[in-house]
Amino acid sequence: MNYKMIKNILGWILLFESLFMLVPLITAIIYWEKAFFSFLIPIIICLALGLILARKRPENTTLYSKEGFVIVSLSWIVLSLFGSLPFIISGAIPSFVDALFETVSGFTTTGASILSDVESLPNSILMWRSFTHWVGGMGVLVFLMAFLPLSGGNNMHIMKAESTGPSVSKLVPRVKTTALILYSIYFFLTALLFVILLFGDMTVFEALNTAFATAGTGGFGIKNDSLGGFSPFVQITVTVFMLLFSINFNCFYLIFLRKFKEAFNIEVRCFIILVAVSVAIITLNTRELFTTLGEGLRHVSFAVSSIVSTTGFSTVDFNLWPEVSRNCIVLLMFIGGCAGATCGGIKISRLIILIKGMFKELHTLVHPKQVKKITIDSKPVEHEVVRATNSYMIAFLLVFVASMIAISFDDHDFITNFTAVAATINNIGPGLEQVGPTQNFALFSAPAKLVLIFDMLAGRLELFPMLLLFSPATWKK
Amino acid sequence: MNYKMIKNILGWILLFESLFMLVPLITAIIYWEKAFFSFLIPIIICLALGLILARKRPENTTLYSKEGFVIVSLSWIVLSLFGSLPFIISGAIPSFVDALFETVSGFTTTGASILSDVESLPNSILMWRSFTHWVGGMGVLVFLMAFLPLSGGNNMHIMKAESTGPSVSKLVPRVKTTALILYSIYFFLTALLFVILLFGDMTVFEALNTAFATAGTGGFGIKNDSLGGFSPFVQITVTVFMLLFSINFNCFYLIFLRKFKEAFNIEVRCFIILVAVSVAIITLNTRELFTTLGEGLRHVSFAVSSIVSTTGFSTVDFNLWPEVSRNCIVLLMFIGGCAGATCGGIKISRLIILIKGMFKELHTLVHPKQVKKITIDSKPVEHEVVRATNSYMIAFLLVFVASMIAISFDDHDFITNFTAVAATINNIGPGLEQVGPTQNFALFSAPAKLVLIFDMLAGRLELFPMLLLFSPATWKK
Repeated sequence: MNYKMIKNILGWILLFESLFMLVPLITAIIYWEKAFFSFLIPIIICLALGLILARKRPENTTLYSKEGFVIVSLSWIVLSLFGSLPFIISGAIPSFVDALFETVSGFTTTGASILSDVESLPNSILMWRSFTHWVGGMGVLVFLMAFLPLSGGNNMHIMKAESTGPSVSKLVPRVKTTALILYSIYFFLTALLFVILLFGDMTVFEALNTAFATAGTGGFGIKNDSLGGFSPFVQITVTVFMLLFSINFNCFYLIFLRKFKEAFNIEVRCFIILVAVSVAIITLNTRELFTTLGEGLRHVSFAVSSIVSTTGFSTVDFNLWPEVSRNCIVLLMFIGGCAGATCGGIKISRLIILIKGMFKELHTLVHPKQVKKITIDSKPVEHEVVRATNSYMIAFLLVFVASMIAISFDDHDFITNFTAVAATINNIGPGLEQVGPTQNFALFSAPAKLVLIFDMLAGRLELFPMLLLFSPATWKK
Repeated sequence: MNYKMIKNILGWILLFESLFMLVPLITAIIYWEKAFFSFLIPIIICLALGLILARKRPENTTLYSKEGFVIVSLSWIVLSLFGSLPFIISGAIPSFVDALFETVSGFTTTGASILSDVESLPNSILMWRSFTHWVGGMGVLVFLMAFLPLSGGNNMHIMKAESTGPSVSKLVPRVKTTALILYSIYFFLTALLFVILLFGDMTVFEALNTAFATAGTGGFGIKNDSLGGFSPFVQITVTVFMLLFSINFNCFYLIFLRKFKEAFNIEVRCFIILVAVSVAIITLNTRELFTTLGEGLRHVSFAVSSIVSTTGFSTVDFNLWPEVSRNCIVLLMFIGGCAGATCGGIKISRLIILIKGMFKELHTLVHPKQVKKITIDSKPVEHEVVRATNSYMIAFLLVFVASMIAISFDDHDFITNFTAVAATINNIGPGLEQVGPTQNFALFSAPAKLVLIFDMLAGRLELFPMLLLFSPATWKK
């Protein structure tokens, strides 16, 4: 294990975190808020500690696969630990576990909150919550790689560990350029959303927060009723952008290159069909709850986009919908969006691989002598990817079940527990019943919150990096 | 597709079914019940139809893999259709869908009932319910193969399709002899249980019914409170035998051959640990519900054995237990017992393969260049078995989710729907809430019942045979 290199990168992470905190710091200055110091102190701490750790560039910069995973997990833990300081210092969330929960929920773009009254918070604190979504959405290390001089193949391991989906495709040969292109698309789409939201009678502050939280598919709101109080124009805009941020960013790059056929690959097509079918079923099923079809369609589209993109914003309380709709919502929680986007969940491309694998097996039973390979977009899927996807699914089920049992010691009802784990491991935010859209996660005990914190991190990093952290083989020489 | 051979075997199935029905027919004679005719008529129908279909032995007796699957699925459907006639004719269950549900629940050893008052039923009807468990437990076609002159490799495909677990190991080279040994063990253990139960102040009728339902790990009771009213001696005896019938029958054969080390293989050891740990956790968690530790231990052991063996008997209402215990119960529902036994569920050996596969993947991430094979009992697991197990898991999840959505149109609560599907696909019987141990499945609509009927059959035959029935590739020339 190259500890010097790990130390160095963690140092850079802290330096970048102090940079990130400038955003809420400036907000505090603009609104002349006491919370200014709640950011100034952590900035100084991160800066000092970061400089110490990153001071010396190690001679041996080689990073193997396992170091990639360890760096990614540790970076996210360090980011969250130091990122929770403003909440604690400002007194907004005095408890350490609660503050950590809120920060992890922010960076992992979950959006599950332990706060019941966000409107009473200082603007700078709200801005920090939203901005953690934006930072976490695309990935901190991808960001680091776009700017840090990391050599050769080293950064590919990190990119693999932090990116979402069963396999990573580089847009261009160089990882650094790929990271830059991805961040440019991310930045451009966020800016576009911000400008459009300004036209929807949102203030600059509201639009900026909403744009950050939507782009990261996070879901922290700045109002107690999430987006319920904003105009239909804002709601529809956010609906569209939540979906956009759930589509593989490669798609946008390929559209930009005018490669339309490649852009709308099987994953994107399946995603569009999934959203359309879900909206149709739920709109029909909830038709009695809304006065007009248009109103129903708007709220249902919003909820479906919010859940499938794993954002977690809400305009209405879908916990009160009939059972079919609630089931569809829970199912969408697990599916999530496309790989290579900012959303969580199992991801469409993984499900395609798994389902195709199952049909291949059925085919093998009928024709035992035919050898068939799974293909996606007419390209064969490598055996390693299929195997890793299967293992991912099993790891997912194990973590899910273990978490369910662990948090059930709080003795809340089954649906609350089930959807609380689903909402955190898939990085959504709200679940059903006691963690429904109008509720929050404050009801859980500290140990249960720690379990859910683990689930959020494990979900965001797609399990293996977090699991490897606890594997003795990782730390053996 | 060898249709002549399929026709022939289905004929034999009907002939055997008429034979099976002699058991309740004799019961009806002993108790001088009107229901006598409800068995006589189906016997005549099955006999006549069976003779017509099985009359001529086809010249070409070759069976390929796909015919094996089709024969198994169709056999179980035919068995269930004709097996429901006594319920309908006797008027015990006038509705066809309900009668089919009860019969499928019997043959698949699920034990989920739509009846609320079983004590009002004629003894012969009760005997038919229990006897379907016994027939279904070991498998009808395995029974057929023990007595039918099927040549060569043909019967291995059928054995594979009907047996439980990820791979079938023949005890002896000949399939026919293997089937005979398995049935001998089954018969002996059932007889032993019957005799012991007679010592526990049960009548011959009660002991016979309970022995049949326990041996098949079915769970249809002859009392409205299942086994709650019987003596602790009976309850403890049934607890032990439910566990015995969840252990791979190879184990008993190997013990008989004095190969103890091979008998207690990893699957059996894991099963014992699972039961012990579950009993410990739940006994601790429910300690306030029972007056003495002994009483708690007895009821918890019973419930754990009943669920993990997928029997479904009950002595107390575990639906009222605290959330941790309820979660453990739900988890055990999915795990089930060992492969090669009469129980349902995913099976321990499958889970061992899946979890070992996941750890192998984690190991590959740390050491990308090492090639490792999954081993069980120091023997490498074939790639085909691993692949089929992964596909099984995905198929399981797909069928589960689709069933959940389908039955949610009835608008019952999430826990009822979730555990109803879990209890049927894993062939258990009771679930939680509205399908809890003191409730029944009558609340569901006919379409929902048909979905659950499919789940019971799919669960018993371990998915692929039933799924292949709906695959166009199966029927193509």
